[in-house]
Amino acid sequence: MPSPQSATLLISCPDQRGIVAAITRFIYENNGNIIHLDQHVDFQEDIFFSRVEWDLTNFSIPANKIVQEFNNLARTFDMRWELHFSDRLPKMAIFVSKLTHCLSDILSRVQSGEWNVEIPMVISNHTDVQALVEHFGILFYHFPINKENKLEQEKKQIEILEKEKIDVVVLARYMQILTPLFVEPFKNRIINIHHSFLPAFAGAKPYHSAYSRGVKIIGATSHYVTADLDAGPIIEQDIIRVSHKDNVENLVRKGKDLEKIVLSRAIWYHLQNKILVYNNKTVIFD
Amino acid sequence: MPSPQSATLLISCPDQRGIVAAITRFIYENNGNIIHLDQHVDFQEDIFFSRVEWDLTNFSIPANKIVQEFNNLARTFDMRWELHFSDRLPKMAIFVSKLTHCLSDILSRVQSGEWNVEIPMVISNHTDVQALVEHFGILFYHFPINKENKLEQEKKQIEILEKEKIDVVVLARYMQILTPLFVEPFKNRIINIHHSFLPAFAGAKPYHSAYSRGVKIIGATSHYVTADLDAGPIIEQDIIRVSHKDNVENLVRKGKDLEKIVLSRAIWYHLQNKILVYNNKTVIFD
Amino acid sequence: MPSPQSATLLISCPDQRGIVAAITRFIYENNGNIIHLDQHVDFQEDIFFSRVEWDLTNFSIPANKIVQEFNNLARTFDMRWELHFSDRLPKMAIFVSKLTHCLSDILSRVQSGEWNVEIPMVISNHTDVQALVEHFGILFYHFPINKENKLEQEKKQIEILEKEKIDVVVLARYMQILTPLFVEPFKNRIINIHHSFLPAFAGAKPYHSAYSRGVKIIGATSHYVTADLDAGPIIEQDIIRVSHKDNVENLVRKGKDLEKIVLSRAIWYHLQNKILVYNNKTVIFD
Amino acid sequence: MPSPQSATLLISCPDQRGIVAAITRFIYENNGNIIHLDQHVDFQEDIFFSRVEWDLTNFSIPANKIVQEFNNLARTFDMRWELHFSDRLPKMAIFVSKLTHCLSDILSRVQSGEWNVEIPMVISNHTDVQALVEHFGILFYHFPINKENKLEQEKKQIEILEKEKIDVVVLARYMQILTPLFVEPFKNRIINIHHSFLPAFAGAKPYHSAYSRGVKIIGATSHYVTADLDAGPIIEQDIIRVSHKDNVENLVRKGKDLEKIVLSRAIWYHLQNKILVYNNKTVIFD
Repeated sequence: MPSPQSATLLISCPDQRGIVAAITRFIYENNGNIIHLDQHVDFQEDIFFSRVEWDLTNFSIPANKIVQEFNNLARTFDMRWELHFSDRLPKMAIFVSKLTHCLSDILSRVQSGEWNVEIPMVISNHTDVQALVEHFGILFYHFPINKENKLEQEKKQIEILEKEKIDVVVLARYMQILTPLFVEPFKNRIINIHHSFLPAFAGAKPYHSAYSRGVKIIGATSHYVTADLDAGPIIEQDIIRVSHKDNVENLVRKGKDLEKIVLSRAIWYHLQNKILVYNNKTVIFD
Repeated sequence: MPSPQSATLLISCPDQRGIVAAITRFIYENNGNIIHLDQHVDFQEDIFFSRVEWDLTNFSIPANKIVQEFNNLARTFDMRWELHFSDRLPKMAIFVSKLTHCLSDILSRVQSGEWNVEIPMVISNHTDVQALVEHFGILFYHFPINKENKLEQEKKQIEILEKEKIDVVVLARYMQILTPLFVEPFKNRIINIHHSFLPAFAGAKPYHSAYSRGVKIIGATSHYVTADLDAGPIIEQDIIRVSHKDNVENLVRKGKDLEKIVLSRAIWYHLQNKILVYNNKTVIFD
Repeated sequence: MPSPQSATLLISCPDQRGIVAAITRFIYENNGNIIHLDQHVDFQEDIFFSRVEWDLTNFSIPANKIVQEFNNLARTFDMRWELHFSDRLPKMAIFVSKLTHCLSDILSRVQSGEWNVEIPMVISNHTDVQALVEHFGILFYHFPINKENKLEQEKKQIEILEKEKIDVVVLARYMQILTPLFVEPFKNRIINIHHSFLPAFAGAKPYHSAYSRGVKIIGATSHYVTADLDAGPIIEQDIIRVSHKDNVENLVRKGKDLEKIVLSRAIWYHLQNKILVYNNKTVIFD
Repeated sequence: MPSPQSATLLISCPDQRGIVAAITRFIYENNGNIIHLDQHVDFQEDIFFSRVEWDLTNFSIPANKIVQEFNNLARTFDMRWELHFSDRLPKMAIFVSKLTHCLSDILSRVQSGEWNVEIPMVISNHTDVQALVEHFGILFYHFPINKENKLEQEKKQIEILEKEKIDVVVLARYMQILTPLFVEPFKNRIINIHHSFLPAFAGAKPYHSAYSRGVKIIGATSHYVTADLDAGPIIEQDIIRVSHKDNVENLVRKGKDLEKIVLSRAIWYHLQNKILVYNNKTVIFD
């Protein structure tokens, strides 16, 4: 059964009376049928958040006029908002270094039809994954990175990403720190997986640090990338128990499973337009 | 900081366009400020569910008229609904046999002020917990149960519960099966804790069964009691890992911690009016 | 760093004094260095279990004589035992129907070098996964199954498996029930993944049953296959939270991640010779 | 069924061939029957660890001579070791400030017979819990702490603890930092509960920090207290999921359940003599 075409609004604005009433009336009076409505209020900051998805089948406003029509309402409540349509396939680029567990997991989800997304390219600073990527019929770009060429290479990467109109960039264990030059234009659109339970063990070699500290649980964290290393808005985390029997090699092995699952959940939330970002945090209407 | 007085509506009705718009307009136009609004649609059954909590501070309808005023709206959408006020302290009775871990957990939560609830009585088929209960200044009733007197004793229990206007009955490891006579008048108001991950290991001695089956995870399940044993609507479940090293005694020990936490979470949801029941399932707006 | 060659003994026998002393003396006096020693006693059944792994570098008994030498000791204690060498690559066959998530997960682990195992073949009752399998350079066999040809096809499958000296068979969402004819010769060597938290929801369509029952947690279970459907010795289980917001489609999606991780953990334990089976249960020295 | 009297050895020493053989021979040749034998080797540090528990019923060495007899063996392998007898009731002192959830949990476990331990005293810097403590028939000591009197008060506390021969001190949400003066004599015998997933959010107000960082999971950590704040050897950790819907108050509420369960598990491991400490980490033979 194909889903009927739907539209999704992601909204945030200063909290006040009547927002939900106004939004639902807008949809209702134009013959839309709400499929999902989620709302949240941060009472400390007095910010209102909502995600509304509605069926467009009988909606009286044509898809290409919704932005314009909704804008009046949006202005009244001083909203920041996005509109997404279910029949538009988002474009995702994957950055990876040498480890394949996250990449393989993503590619097999796309191949099996679990996700509706197009992956026009995979970019790597090494060539280890080239054969794997090309087998899936995906373009592979090799951008070797060193201290000298980093900025230059990032500029070229951005060019390619923009030319292909990439919507979201996934760092699937990409062992390079992106500069602000790269991060800025893709704000809240670069998803990273860090192999620790952030904020614990940010930075390099988290499994070694976890081993030294003697933790009884390890974790993985997926987050949007910001200029601060491993400090962006957290999308998803998960954990697994470890014990004194687990050496670093075991932590790495157990952690890989966490990493790929946590990253894939985060990507899925993003692709489903379920995430709103504010104050370096996420609201996720799961 | 005392919470401002609020009202909470729990609503379910056949799904149709405009329900949320109507509810939020009702509150908005009467100067209510929505604190929480959750909604859910079961698209398979076409049923709409909502929980709305709003601040009554400036609400133009007096508390004792809200039922009457809302009724018109409710009838339009064929709603089943409940209204709760935050300043009314619910009354809870606890049934227990001999094991104290759930009982102690509940009493210490109430004593420390974690929960807003009144516990006028504890009822038991044994006297083991009498001293513990009375220390908390709570009335203790002893109702020994055997095959012959069960119905008669239940009648007396119901009398006491009704006389005290008990809102919710908690079976905190009460090792007696209630008859339909008892269950019927307290539909969706009797919360049980079963010491297994239902529907696995319903009935007696679930830890022994779990041990025999060699499961790697055990669980506990809190549910509303229905006429069918351990088959009522599930409110909350949780699990813990076990291994071949755990004999039955260990499963019991580990399970006790699960039982008390799972039961207490279920009670909390109930006390916060966060649960809607339909089709022998629960919607929980947590 | 290549591991030094090691030997692993899996032992079970009636419990009595002096077993560990005898085993460790056997290794110690022959200049073996114990890498891992795990032991467990089931005091209810009075059965002793042990897994001993030792470095063969300076071991004074040649590898091909260990069986013979250990046999005297084994007989004294009435042991059932197995001996494995770390440098022998086990052979694994995968059975699959149409769903690819478990298969892809396994293949990507083998390809990335995470597991030391050889996969000479994948067998399916459909042809959907043929291209995927052959891309990995693995032989694909198509055995369509219906009521009439089942036994005959199983016979042919067993022939191929035995010809290739397959050590372990993995049912990676293979939607056929194996007959005792097939199960018997591969006792404790067929690993299945069932998409529920067994013993709950054995048999067909467990996600539908979980949805109907309104559980708050779903699970997956990997077990050795026996003649009784979904009733064999459990190797590994794991769970994930669900809520009223999750329809069957969501349970399936969330469950897939569980299935592949749980199955892969079970396979890993098996490949590492960490599992002993008794009384339809497993001892896992993880 | 009362357990037969047993002895437990906790051993660590440089790894070398023949340790287990020697230990088990010592027990076996003196007619001891091993109930539990666990061993672990840290191959990075080349340290051997073991926990051996054996039945003393027919043991040929009298209990009061075991230390002396074992000492020869211990010296050969350069062992650090402890010997515990199952029939000796350990003495535990609890330190607490104002919050009662951990204290109540501990007291109800002791009262119900779940733990074999004697609690001769509860010490607090406030008087809030005095009535609760005294109801359980336990001595309550009030030691108000401020910057000026801290060292002096600690000295008095140590005096009382030593006079009562306290074996283990539990900080059940004791909101004071102990000085090295106090910590030193109770090395690996002071168990603290910290309300975060260490090493994340060490120090004050971890729930506020977790809220600000927008984590999706919160945790609690029980550890032995050392001179460095929240940096001692971790005994046990556990976590619970949170979301954008959880404000700080909710994190505190959810966290309390974690804290009491995690602390109680850590105490249980300690009381069962299942913990060995080295390199600021723990080996736990659970």
